[in-house]
Amino acid sequence: MIDELSALKRIEERFHKASKDVKLGIGDDAAAVRFDSDKLVLCTTDSQVEDVHFTKSLITPSELARKAVAVSVSDVGAMGGVPKFILASVGFSDGEGEEFLEGAITGFIDSEQEFRVEIIGGNLTSSNKLFIDITVLGEVEPELIVKRSGANPGDLIYATGTLGDSALGLKIVQDGVLDSGNHLVNRHFHPMPRLELGRELALKKIATSMIDISDGLLLDLERISVHQGTGAQIDLAKIPTSRDYDKFIMQFSDNQYNVALSGGEDYELLFTSHKDKQGEIEKISENLNINITEIGKITNSDRVELINSNGEEITLEQRGFVHFNN
Amino acid sequence: MIDELSALKRIEERFHKASKDVKLGIGDDAAAVRFDSDKLVLCTTDSQVEDVHFTKSLITPSELARKAVAVSVSDVGAMGGVPKFILASVGFSDGEGEEFLEGAITGFIDSEQEFRVEIIGGNLTSSNKLFIDITVLGEVEPELIVKRSGANPGDLIYATGTLGDSALGLKIVQDGVLDSGNHLVNRHFHPMPRLELGRELALKKIATSMIDISDGLLLDLERISVHQGTGAQIDLAKIPTSRDYDKFIMQFSDNQYNVALSGGEDYELLFTSHKDKQGEIEKISENLNINITEIGKITNSDRVELINSNGEEITLEQRGFVHFNN
Repeated sequence: MIDELSALKRIEERFHKASKDVKLGIGDDAAAVRFDSDKLVLCTTDSQVEDVHFTKSLITPSELARKAVAVSVSDVGAMGGVPKFILASVGFSDGEGEEFLEGAITGFIDSEQEFRVEIIGGNLTSSNKLFIDITVLGEVEPELIVKRSGANPGDLIYATGTLGDSALGLKIVQDGVLDSGNHLVNRHFHPMPRLELGRELALKKIATSMIDISDGLLLDLERISVHQGTGAQIDLAKIPTSRDYDKFIMQFSDNQYNVALSGGEDYELLFTSHKDKQGEIEKISENLNINITEIGKITNSDRVELINSNGEEITLEQRGFVHFNN
Repeated sequence: MIDELSALKRIEERFHKASKDVKLGIGDDAAAVRFDSDKLVLCTTDSQVEDVHFTKSLITPSELARKAVAVSVSDVGAMGGVPKFILASVGFSDGEGEEFLEGAITGFIDSEQEFRVEIIGGNLTSSNKLFIDITVLGEVEPELIVKRSGANPGDLIYATGTLGDSALGLKIVQDGVLDSGNHLVNRHFHPMPRLELGRELALKKIATSMIDISDGLLLDLERISVHQGTGAQIDLAKIPTSRDYDKFIMQFSDNQYNVALSGGEDYELLFTSHKDKQGEIEKISENLNINITEIGKITNSDRVELINSNGEEITLEQRGFVHFNN
């Protein structure tokens, strides 16, 4: 079990550096930081709770800490912003000891490097189940912020990377079929938020709306269409999936598309853009070497329609929840 | 059990107002806010975890939500700053239903009024045990910030209000002796952070160091003395206690002072000041109608010394933990 006082001492030792924007970091009642005066401050918080979001036996402390930061900075990237500072609130159970503490600190320090953020504070408490609650502070120019609202009928809908890998990867690990060397499994435990791409789309004023896909394509698509008073039409055949997804999906699901549509935890970007911008989007895709796939368009209806390769609308019983066999 | 989607809808309905500094509030990937360009942004996070910080049967959802905000804004006040924005991350267990949701929302809205803050975002998740994790963003002028460090030998040490009431109040409720009408009990469930006083001490540049007393006087005193390379000498007879504390303490403890010294959750301010400022401090105390008691001085030693009424040093076996009878 972790002793809070000695843990805090260890943490203060290891997070001793601070950039010029950090006037006061870990170790006082509050941290004090500086933002660019002409920018808006973005803030968001997200939790990873044991046996809700993760199972301790399947993820290392270092992976867990990094992932908690990754999924939180993803929200700032999806607004076209740049994440800067992190507060980490950790509830540790009797099961967490010295090894957990060292692993988690390593994961947090790795995430500082990878996402160019600084951990400036947080909280330690004991808890029945392990949890990590991450708050991210970032910044964005007021004229560049990309919201969930803003898409217009006729705008094209784009998804980055491939979808469904993370949910399928988790299922594969849970069933003990493959280990962490696999691409799908890696996508689950080591998500890569699209910070650079989100920023580029904002800087070039290409996206009319944007969100990161955390709860599955369909649910997150509703958030930028139906919840904003428009509809959307998606071509099922265009949904981008990986080679590994295509190889394994029918072993685990009775439907080829369900997991890609509703699997969750992809942390890809879903955005809309005027159709005149297609060329610019292709260029950005090439420059950053990230697939960006047009998957449909915003409509005047009040719902999300899924169209199969024959041009017929199909329905899915479940939206936002993965349906696996067994 | 709470349905996350309908809960979010309910939350968005009830937190619809936003001041001019909130460019984007609840409902997007991140909130976007504006701070005064010449100020530092203060940020801090704190958790209330079921069966660690509270017992569900003893506190109402509304009290819990308000208290979670109160103890977090207290940290900003203890730096001389002004709290502005709140992110609330809530993990709810199967036990929480509609009634919890309504109560918690009411408590959060009450806290917005009382502490002049705005709830701009947060997160909802399910959890084995109920928890509320609050992040506060505030601001302070760089030249006015009051840190834990900064006290000099010879500085006088002050505590506000009375100490030990909260811990004793909790014990009284746990033993079923008195109910919430009692002053001590009320101090536990309805803590009053000293925001106005903390701000006044900063504006007048009176405090050389400051902290809010959350973990008991002795532990928090070490944080502004021993941890900063100085010592402290405290006159036991000067420790401010309430009439109710004096009346009930010997029923629950074998020592008159222990709970006031180490009880925790007082959320009073502990600060140091040059001895020339005594007159100014008395004036502030009168103006704000808050007791401010000089309890000792900062020394050149490397520890906290407790002096009894005969001028002799005494030792306490336990520091930072309450020792109750039975």
